[in-house]
Amino acid sequence: MAQKKFTLQEKDMPRQWYNIQADLPEPLPPYLHPATKQPLGPADLAPLFPMELIKQEVSQERYIDIPEEVQEVYYLWRPTTLYRAYALEKALDTPAKIFYKYEGSSPPGSHKPNTAVAQAYYNKKEGVKRIATETGAGQWGSSLAFACKLFDIECKVYMVRVSYNQKPYRRIMMETWGAKCVPSPSPDTKAGRDMLAKDPDCPGSLGLAISEAVEDAFGREDTKYSLGSVLNHVLMHQTIIGQEAMKQMEMAGYYPDIIVGCVGGGSNFAGMFLPFVKDKIKGKKKDLRIVCVEPESCPTLTKGLYAYDYGDVAGMAPIAKMFTLGHTFMPPPVHAGGLRYHGMAPIVCHLHKLGFVEARAVPQVATFEAGVTFARTEGIISAPETNHAIRATIDEALKCKQEGKSRVILLAHSGHGHFDMAAYESYLSGKLQDYAYPEALVKEALKSLPQIPA
Amino acid sequence: MAQKKFTLQEKDMPRQWYNIQADLPEPLPPYLHPATKQPLGPADLAPLFPMELIKQEVSQERYIDIPEEVQEVYYLWRPTTLYRAYALEKALDTPAKIFYKYEGSSPPGSHKPNTAVAQAYYNKKEGVKRIATETGAGQWGSSLAFACKLFDIECKVYMVRVSYNQKPYRRIMMETWGAKCVPSPSPDTKAGRDMLAKDPDCPGSLGLAISEAVEDAFGREDTKYSLGSVLNHVLMHQTIIGQEAMKQMEMAGYYPDIIVGCVGGGSNFAGMFLPFVKDKIKGKKKDLRIVCVEPESCPTLTKGLYAYDYGDVAGMAPIAKMFTLGHTFMPPPVHAGGLRYHGMAPIVCHLHKLGFVEARAVPQVATFEAGVTFARTEGIISAPETNHAIRATIDEALKCKQEGKSRVILLAHSGHGHFDMAAYESYLSGKLQDYAYPEALVKEALKSLPQIPA
Repeated sequence: MAQKKFTLQEKDMPRQWYNIQADLPEPLPPYLHPATKQPLGPADLAPLFPMELIKQEVSQERYIDIPEEVQEVYYLWRPTTLYRAYALEKALDTPAKIFYKYEGSSPPGSHKPNTAVAQAYYNKKEGVKRIATETGAGQWGSSLAFACKLFDIECKVYMVRVSYNQKPYRRIMMETWGAKCVPSPSPDTKAGRDMLAKDPDCPGSLGLAISEAVEDAFGREDTKYSLGSVLNHVLMHQTIIGQEAMKQMEMAGYYPDIIVGCVGGGSNFAGMFLPFVKDKIKGKKKDLRIVCVEPESCPTLTKGLYAYDYGDVAGMAPIAKMFTLGHTFMPPPVHAGGLRYHGMAPIVCHLHKLGFVEARAVPQVATFEAGVTFARTEGIISAPETNHAIRATIDEALKCKQEGKSRVILLAHSGHGHFDMAAYESYLSGKLQDYAYPEALVKEALKSLPQIPA
Repeated sequence: MAQKKFTLQEKDMPRQWYNIQADLPEPLPPYLHPATKQPLGPADLAPLFPMELIKQEVSQERYIDIPEEVQEVYYLWRPTTLYRAYALEKALDTPAKIFYKYEGSSPPGSHKPNTAVAQAYYNKKEGVKRIATETGAGQWGSSLAFACKLFDIECKVYMVRVSYNQKPYRRIMMETWGAKCVPSPSPDTKAGRDMLAKDPDCPGSLGLAISEAVEDAFGREDTKYSLGSVLNHVLMHQTIIGQEAMKQMEMAGYYPDIIVGCVGGGSNFAGMFLPFVKDKIKGKKKDLRIVCVEPESCPTLTKGLYAYDYGDVAGMAPIAKMFTLGHTFMPPPVHAGGLRYHGMAPIVCHLHKLGFVEARAVPQVATFEAGVTFARTEGIISAPETNHAIRATIDEALKCKQEGKSRVILLAHSGHGHFDMAAYESYLSGKLQDYAYPEALVKEALKSLPQIPA
């Protein structure tokens, strides 16, 4: 058998993040202030983020050095492995060559710590003592808890109540790393108290949890806020994935024809494809296809509107130009909690609008079918989010078989499903269901878009 | 910072298992037949195991080739990484140099698939269609389920009922890999039915689950039995750990002064130390210390009797010369389910008796304290079993500090604790308790030792 595993040594890990803003054919539309609706300045963001991250958010430098202290923590799980999926190829009887880059080997089990560690580091450096954040399914909250503990920063996580109750293990993980985790809505903020007064049994939402964490950070001198996806600097921190993958694909002797990944906020897949999309923008790889996969029930890129919208429910977070289903949209309770967001990273949306990346939406049951096929061939039990990317990968591989083409497919594998076994049980017992595109709800939510002065 | 991570490439993976039987100063005492109490022959084992494994069990060859098909599956997670624990060293302020070899990156999350894959392969090769086994906490059951699926063999797991109810995620993991998992005692075997008739609410035990799986294999032509620890061939399959570690310690420029690991059946730690103990046996490394760590509540090596005893409760499994607490001994319900066994691998016991390895017992709460320290420095949340080894590693490192010695400690890290978060919650909330050594129960259980004719 040819080589299965492409392993980089510590010394081969990239020393810089790649900043796509240096290579965009058109600049990104600016963020707007949620109250004034005028372009945001650094001073507006200063209560929320350390200055170095605010600079990175708008930097036009092509490469930004990864601090040594961050590299040292990365070594715990980076460089991550690139695998050739021989067993999956064989099971599908496809001429496609499938590779996957696996981010599940980080201690919290996903790509999220790539940015959590960087963010914790810059906060520490600027004297921040405490960070507040929100989490849905818990991937992000546990990653920030992990990173904060290593840099000796207090961490407070507002976890969407329905997940808090369904996934106690993710909460305990955060506590093991020393973080404080409360269900949102919580009595700790005005946003939370207001909601509890209205509905004491409110299951919460990511948008509301963001409002709570932002309020927490605004209210305390010693505290900043941290976001696990969507923002430019977050996507940039994730580019270490794609840069490593480029080296590893070179070791394997191939350049991908198709790159596939799941998108919720967009950071995991952008981290993979941004270093490659550069080749496409520059005209070196015109035929490269980049496929963003989202749930049919929350189809931001495939059904959303490209417009300015708020990042959170309460309208406290900056306004961004993005594909959106409306910031008041409440997605159906699919198991892929990380893909239940009304918007999408502005960079991903911009590249989609410009035609550099494509998008497709897949139904839930088919994603678990793909995930089980992957587990029974490649061995790894994947996160429900990742199963979306696996579904599309398998579909592309089957198309290769039909067409007799031997294309090279690179799958961005964002993490394992060890904390999602209840979802697998639901699938295996035949209870899992699909949710149709909630067209009426989206239509209603899109009415909540802010009016932007021309 | 100096190098943290010592990574081997696929091509550096060992191609042979190491068989300690070639280098033992005295041969192992033979197994005895449970009925006749005479030495066992291959024919006695043939209904349970494929012939190749029976040969390996008694082989005197120093090295046995790892079949290519097994190597190909190993590549999914092997070679595993050796880390230098800089963050832990710093937190302890110790001059000790601590290294750990991490087996948690396998799909089932522990060292167990090193032998599960080999066993599934040999069964497949000899035409076996179905394998029956038992599991306690689920590490072994899920590893065999994983391996059987990859070689297209049916898998039936008898899971100790109390764990089956407490750890549904482990069961779902097995089902995701296509295995059938039932709580033991089950109505599927006579041993199970007899127990259920006596006590319908029986919580089960590992010894009883072994009896059920053995009965299942004896009763069906298409089925063999598989054991996840204790036996010589199982320990041999695990020696890939220690052989890799030797190469990696050489890359790091050190030879260990102390090797530490947890022992239940003994296979994980033996896999690490057997290639090193050879150097001690040969007189090349006389001062090397090898420390087996077990729970105070199930202290087989530190308090047990070195005697012939049955491997299971019902007395259907072979009789082995080992340290034992008596095969009817029911250990207290500590969270380290993998360390709750009345006996111990004959090879480990033999080496302990000959003075080549030492043993110590640690109380439960102190192991979780150590595990949380490890999680908050090195990032990894470890299995409760592994926390025993971490406890002893920290104690040795603190002793180095006291004595001003810079010893090199190598920790065998057997796996992650993603399915054990309930145990962490119990510790973090202050509810976890220690169990004293149950002296009276052991005294009673030791009365059940078989009478062996001289």
